[in-house]
Amino acid sequence: MDVLWVVAPPDPRSLTAALAAEGVAALRASGHTVEVSDLPAMSWNPVVTAADYGTEGRLRVSAAAGAAFAEGTLPADVVAEQDKLRRADVVVLHFPMWWFSMPAIMKGWVDRVFVSGFGYGVRAPEGHTRRYGDGILAGKRALVVTSTGGPASAFGPRGVNGELDELLFPILHGTLFYAGATVLAPHLVPGADRFTEADAARAAADLRTRLAGLETETPLPYRVERAEYERLELRPEVAPGETGLRAHLREGVMTEPRGDHQALTRLPA
Amino acid sequence: MDVLWVVAPPDPRSLTAALAAEGVAALRASGHTVEVSDLPAMSWNPVVTAADYGTEGRLRVSAAAGAAFAEGTLPADVVAEQDKLRRADVVVLHFPMWWFSMPAIMKGWVDRVFVSGFGYGVRAPEGHTRRYGDGILAGKRALVVTSTGGPASAFGPRGVNGELDELLFPILHGTLFYAGATVLAPHLVPGADRFTEADAARAAADLRTRLAGLETETPLPYRVERAEYERLELRPEVAPGETGLRAHLREGVMTEPRGDHQALTRLPA
Repeated sequence: MDVLWVVAPPDPRSLTAALAAEGVAALRASGHTVEVSDLPAMSWNPVVTAADYGTEGRLRVSAAAGAAFAEGTLPADVVAEQDKLRRADVVVLHFPMWWFSMPAIMKGWVDRVFVSGFGYGVRAPEGHTRRYGDGILAGKRALVVTSTGGPASAFGPRGVNGELDELLFPILHGTLFYAGATVLAPHLVPGADRFTEADAARAAADLRTRLAGLETETPLPYRVERAEYERLELRPEVAPGETGLRAHLREGVMTEPRGDHQALTRLPA
Repeated sequence: MDVLWVVAPPDPRSLTAALAAEGVAALRASGHTVEVSDLPAMSWNPVVTAADYGTEGRLRVSAAAGAAFAEGTLPADVVAEQDKLRRADVVVLHFPMWWFSMPAIMKGWVDRVFVSGFGYGVRAPEGHTRRYGDGILAGKRALVVTSTGGPASAFGPRGVNGELDELLFPILHGTLFYAGATVLAPHLVPGADRFTEADAARAAADLRTRLAGLETETPLPYRVERAEYERLELRPEVAPGETGLRAHLREGVMTEPRGDHQALTRLPA
């Protein structure tokens, strides 16, 4: 497989950088091809500006980006990332969790790369918009790997931070699944603020184990828009009476322990 | 009241910029003092680097930021925002919703301003960590104002994007409530991609109405960590058996129409 590993380590010697190196090495050792986008190392610009689209006058982001995409005039750094995404069979987004989301540099990778015409606003020949289960990432798997200072229990079903997959819904569902990816349960690296050498070794081993199942693991069973929604809402006969983020999953969630950490897994579809 | 209005308009002539100007004018007309942080106009740097903390060697963000905060050596742009937050009675975060979250420039405002010792990792004299209902924003109200291309129904209880307050949980709960703020239901400006002059006027009127209730509106009833959690999980007797993001609210949610748009409101606490 071709894997794109997008990573935002705060420092080249950080836990995130070390784990990314471990993950990439493990994938390569298994015969996969891996491209890495190390955003801080690339000095990635995270801010959308008119300069991306050569816009004069008022910038209307969606229209300007869509036009620049269609005309092939997007900046080279953005085009390079779009090409990496096209080549990939698997996309990994790997970041330390800051304020329960991505660091700004990675959010700005999404903002600048997933432009109209590429990441959203893509019409199918039949006339509908390719979205939520279909899109540029269709047929590709996506995995979020994220480290947190707190323990896994704080991200569990009754954890104070909110349950991990719900907390990351804007990324897992709103970005990766929106663009068509087959999204795996996020891989949590908890307790990262107090890591010892032994913890780091265990986290690396956990990650290698996880990556070994990348091709076969059961993904999150998000509902496909074309099949189960009408006019942007769940059809009345789908999960009748259910509301909230859970309603967008085809079945319930279970948590089970994995290794020394607790990881979220799903019942098979 | 002193209000801090933090805004990320993609263009000075954008709907976001126009609505921010309306909101600020309405607040000033009501006798409030308003400070504005227009992040693109300030050329805000959203990326955390070692330069923020004068770090030599490996950057450990939390420790380095905490030390720089304690020593008073944070960069002037960060200190200025922290001072604005201290002065404010109300904090408004206003942004176009990109990929179901903030644009990177605003995420990087959070990342760089809410450092250890200021936004998190603050010990109370009694020894516990001030967090989730207590912190630097204690006694302050917070409102998220966000515009979306899609209609409000897509952010409703069965909307394909996920219900608005759950979707924004990392911001509302994980950032604002974490830092101690009294958090109001988010203010949605839907359908922004196809705005007419009439739509813009109506959105401005809706916003003015909303702002008129800023001091009296019932906030989101998030559960306070010190009262209802133990070791980072809900106490067994609190909402027994409940899981997921809803479990962190003291009561259920209801939606009711407001003006032409649907807005989320809460049952009174």
